[in-house]
Amino acid sequence: MIIVLKPKIAKRDELAVLKEIRKLGYRPHIMRGVERTVIGAIGDERTHQSLETLVSWPQIESVTPIQKRFKLVSREAHPANSTVKVRGEVIGGKRFHVMAGPCSVESEKQLLTTAHAVAEAGATILRGGAFKPRTSPYEFQGLGEKGLKLLDKARRETGLPVITELLSEQHAELVAEYADILQIGTRNAQNFQLLIAAAKTGKPVLLKRGLSMKIEEWLLAGEYVLANENCNLMFCERGIRTFETYTRNTLDLSTIPIIKNESHLPIVVDPSQGAGRADLIAAMCKGAVAMGADALLIEVHPNPAEAWSDGAQQLSIDKFKQLTRELKPFIAAAGRE
Amino acid sequence: MIIVLKPKIAKRDELAVLKEIRKLGYRPHIMRGVERTVIGAIGDERTHQSLETLVSWPQIESVTPIQKRFKLVSREAHPANSTVKVRGEVIGGKRFHVMAGPCSVESEKQLLTTAHAVAEAGATILRGGAFKPRTSPYEFQGLGEKGLKLLDKARRETGLPVITELLSEQHAELVAEYADILQIGTRNAQNFQLLIAAAKTGKPVLLKRGLSMKIEEWLLAGEYVLANENCNLMFCERGIRTFETYTRNTLDLSTIPIIKNESHLPIVVDPSQGAGRADLIAAMCKGAVAMGADALLIEVHPNPAEAWSDGAQQLSIDKFKQLTRELKPFIAAAGRE
Amino acid sequence: MIIVLKPKIAKRDELAVLKEIRKLGYRPHIMRGVERTVIGAIGDERTHQSLETLVSWPQIESVTPIQKRFKLVSREAHPANSTVKVRGEVIGGKRFHVMAGPCSVESEKQLLTTAHAVAEAGATILRGGAFKPRTSPYEFQGLGEKGLKLLDKARRETGLPVITELLSEQHAELVAEYADILQIGTRNAQNFQLLIAAAKTGKPVLLKRGLSMKIEEWLLAGEYVLANENCNLMFCERGIRTFETYTRNTLDLSTIPIIKNESHLPIVVDPSQGAGRADLIAAMCKGAVAMGADALLIEVHPNPAEAWSDGAQQLSIDKFKQLTRELKPFIAAAGRE
Amino acid sequence: MIIVLKPKIAKRDELAVLKEIRKLGYRPHIMRGVERTVIGAIGDERTHQSLETLVSWPQIESVTPIQKRFKLVSREAHPANSTVKVRGEVIGGKRFHVMAGPCSVESEKQLLTTAHAVAEAGATILRGGAFKPRTSPYEFQGLGEKGLKLLDKARRETGLPVITELLSEQHAELVAEYADILQIGTRNAQNFQLLIAAAKTGKPVLLKRGLSMKIEEWLLAGEYVLANENCNLMFCERGIRTFETYTRNTLDLSTIPIIKNESHLPIVVDPSQGAGRADLIAAMCKGAVAMGADALLIEVHPNPAEAWSDGAQQLSIDKFKQLTRELKPFIAAAGRE
Repeated sequence: MIIVLKPKIAKRDELAVLKEIRKLGYRPHIMRGVERTVIGAIGDERTHQSLETLVSWPQIESVTPIQKRFKLVSREAHPANSTVKVRGEVIGGKRFHVMAGPCSVESEKQLLTTAHAVAEAGATILRGGAFKPRTSPYEFQGLGEKGLKLLDKARRETGLPVITELLSEQHAELVAEYADILQIGTRNAQNFQLLIAAAKTGKPVLLKRGLSMKIEEWLLAGEYVLANENCNLMFCERGIRTFETYTRNTLDLSTIPIIKNESHLPIVVDPSQGAGRADLIAAMCKGAVAMGADALLIEVHPNPAEAWSDGAQQLSIDKFKQLTRELKPFIAAAGRE
Repeated sequence: MIIVLKPKIAKRDELAVLKEIRKLGYRPHIMRGVERTVIGAIGDERTHQSLETLVSWPQIESVTPIQKRFKLVSREAHPANSTVKVRGEVIGGKRFHVMAGPCSVESEKQLLTTAHAVAEAGATILRGGAFKPRTSPYEFQGLGEKGLKLLDKARRETGLPVITELLSEQHAELVAEYADILQIGTRNAQNFQLLIAAAKTGKPVLLKRGLSMKIEEWLLAGEYVLANENCNLMFCERGIRTFETYTRNTLDLSTIPIIKNESHLPIVVDPSQGAGRADLIAAMCKGAVAMGADALLIEVHPNPAEAWSDGAQQLSIDKFKQLTRELKPFIAAAGRE
Repeated sequence: MIIVLKPKIAKRDELAVLKEIRKLGYRPHIMRGVERTVIGAIGDERTHQSLETLVSWPQIESVTPIQKRFKLVSREAHPANSTVKVRGEVIGGKRFHVMAGPCSVESEKQLLTTAHAVAEAGATILRGGAFKPRTSPYEFQGLGEKGLKLLDKARRETGLPVITELLSEQHAELVAEYADILQIGTRNAQNFQLLIAAAKTGKPVLLKRGLSMKIEEWLLAGEYVLANENCNLMFCERGIRTFETYTRNTLDLSTIPIIKNESHLPIVVDPSQGAGRADLIAAMCKGAVAMGADALLIEVHPNPAEAWSDGAQQLSIDKFKQLTRELKPFIAAAGRE
Repeated sequence: MIIVLKPKIAKRDELAVLKEIRKLGYRPHIMRGVERTVIGAIGDERTHQSLETLVSWPQIESVTPIQKRFKLVSREAHPANSTVKVRGEVIGGKRFHVMAGPCSVESEKQLLTTAHAVAEAGATILRGGAFKPRTSPYEFQGLGEKGLKLLDKARRETGLPVITELLSEQHAELVAEYADILQIGTRNAQNFQLLIAAAKTGKPVLLKRGLSMKIEEWLLAGEYVLANENCNLMFCERGIRTFETYTRNTLDLSTIPIIKNESHLPIVVDPSQGAGRADLIAAMCKGAVAMGADALLIEVHPNPAEAWSDGAQQLSIDKFKQLTRELKPFIAAAGRE
């Protein structure tokens, strides 16, 4: 910790700070600058109590941590890239992955039509929501267990592993029974109890970035998964909330190189949520591939205009096929397969 | 819904839109403007399926809802102010309330010292965290049930009703057994399963605004509580996340008159989270009182520098006493007691 | 400056950093922590070249300045409150001020009607836009010099000093000839050439906060005025841009105590721009008074629905009169006149 | 305009709205919905006075414009792509462009070294700041006219056209004498007087997006240039301000397909400002190319750690050479040269 004292404080007030630093388990180290005195508090910031509360003292101007707060997810802890294995598919390796399917599972016909079509077009993982978090209690909340069973059927027919959202601790066992990857949604990105429950199922977890989550907070939410002994974690950028209203969210593609710098874990991009508009998705996918994403998560629906949720951002099957064709040269340019 | 067509589309494409509108249960009404054609789709937007998905059609420029999406929380539904009753205290009425206590319950001594002091200074409700949502898994997570028991003891000694945070569906019964008000925290503001679980306990619920929650989303999250047959709801503004880093969050005091306009439910302000700095809290409290808040939620600790969580933003007991004195003329000016 | 080295770097790379620090005029001071080495670079950060560019070196993790970058506007430089004097009115002293008038000067009748009405209701300064910065080139751009002449006439008739916006360096002399206070608008808050031109007129300057300006940037923009030998500066909070769309901007009232902490200069609040909605203005004014603002800047129009700009946020004359009555107990509670 | 009335208003209040709509030059068209009455006001929203001020009437809930506010920059006005020609280079056509050079011109040696190096590495346009807008008045403000003369010399030696920033109306003639492209910086993106002065020089203009500028506002700021008879305009995305602090700004690459959808003008991306960190620039450039940008604007310095401004985000010459090599397959994949 770096503690900056206010200018011109009394000697007695400085001594009190030094005493408290020692009391909290750190060794103080004084530097006298031109205008201000700075104290380095030496010790492990993760084992001692935080010194940040010292900022409430009147003689202290600021307290700044030096260490990074995340450990297990950090590249320092694990310099090589990690991969996540799902029924034979390896995410985070040389092969680029496309996870595709409807926003919500609506019916057997809707799901199977989409599943076969996306498999044929090159998708390697099937997405589909059975439990849906909806802004209003009056909106369609998902088919629940019936939806999970349909996903299971689609998996058996197409061979594609399945990713679906977990939104209640009480569903953790049930969803883990059917899903190959558990998705933690944006609104639950700091629902730590849910993260722990997901981790404990042992299934791979895909953690979406919260609407206004800083990178460090996202890595620390991931730390909850690894600290609960599940290292099959993927981060998923899906756009943050900004002042811009043209798009539903602002897809922050810079998180791709940042997550690669800071962490060893795979990074997935969801352009459907990021844009909220089907007409921007193809460009966003190309950008994500070029910037080094490991996979895409794309919403596809046989008839977007009649979708029961988020129709505006779902691709039609034809558009999805065109997209996978257009992505090929960019996947090659990025050195992926 | 108001549907705007793109300029110069074919007659056939316009007819397809009209057909789809009728199919989804609305009656279309055409207006031809100077450059664009606008279609009003008449029908109850909450009973029919949403038309917003139509925006995925190439001939459509925009789709805008007309009705408000929230019902039970709206002032239209209930023109008079609602109040929430908690062990004889009435929140939302003429009397202004102060909820005060430590961020986390740390020990019997810490809690009882604080509880007696805030009661003496005029607080009417005791706050204290037993289960704490923490950004990092390595930070203090609260005393859990032991903390709840200490809150119960403090309530018996001081007579103050207790508010404490609920952060897991699985704790709903346990926390409801001890608490008089269940607090739903910022990170769980759109954890709809938790909102439903809280509502079902029948206890009053205080719903904090999410870090990047729009007013409409906040009202709709509240709608989850009322739609689950619990009308004892309070909204609590605690600051939103913006680009500004001087304060921990940006306290958005304009929500006080807005919630009063849009809803019949009480509005509480938490300046401790909003500022993240003890030195700004007094001014923020005065502003909240003047703008019409029904209550304040303030963190108080006997020794903020040694607090186990959020020390920087907790008031010392002396500072809290001074604050309650300073607030009095503003409470009177606002016509409250 | 505090320079944090990456973990496990070579001795040679550390020496290179020390050498560069000395070369740039600082004295390095090493602290070896548990995981990382920290170097304090001692010297005046405002006279030496910045060390922040060192962050481009691969062995360096972060570089953090210690000193505040603003000087003349800081309370450290001038512990007592400053006041700004305008034709006998003193802003920043015991007396609370209300600056009121139309968004744009539209006609002699509109301006004089408003000016007399606001003077009668207790306003002490007249506002009115002669040059208007408009988002679209097709919107009304203000009456220009003719507007200034009407403001002069209104001043002579009512005795109220006049505040009006300066939006071009080339108008500085002209506007200063007519205005008692030069307003620098949000969009020009970091138009440093305009700030210098305004400062050089010698007239008092009111500096609105930019739409996405951090507090430090705002203070530094103010520093441009004082550094150009004009110390008659007022800051004006008018709302920042956030994700919220219910209000036009998010009025950040926490800037009132912050500016009072960090600076000796007066702080004014403009709730009209902040809210963008007339129905929220009264509550915002009360909050601003309670939190310690020195003055309010309020848009008033004889017929808001027919205003040539920003009608939605202008108060009618009756509403303004009611507001000044309602503010009185809050002004008294705040210890102002 | 679409005007939504509040529920249950008196007939008389509805008639008053209809009368005002007609008075302001529109033809009202009534639609009675289930709960609310909606009035379409038919007429050209750009020639009549705005109806948006009607929202100040108590019986009106909302007023929504239908037409887009920008004309000359819109793709509706000019369906084919426009190009900007600069000394034989065509921006916006098949050829992809790289504009590179130092943040600030510091000395003849620094500029010429960089200019020759970037030319050799494939850059087609030379950037360099002679007048610098700096957050603090105590920071290096640029070499001014001397910097312009050095840029002229570098142009003569390398043959590269020159882009440099214009930050004062009073420099417009001087800067236009030396520059081939005038850059309008982020902080001046809504300094409309400067935009008009730049347009009137007749030189191509590159308009950076403001820190918190919505897409529509950016297009309207561009409209100021075209409306002043200069159609040689390029937009330049350089990152917006969000809550995230890991990067200096959040580069919003979705603006590439959006500007292409909405406008016929070229779009350039500046990853140096967007990231503020040299280590993220390569990935951002690849993303920008893949998403369809017409050009990149990149800061390059012979020794970033000793740069007089923004050293953290400038690439060294070697890194820049490596970048141009790495970009090639992505430029090919995007169908550009």
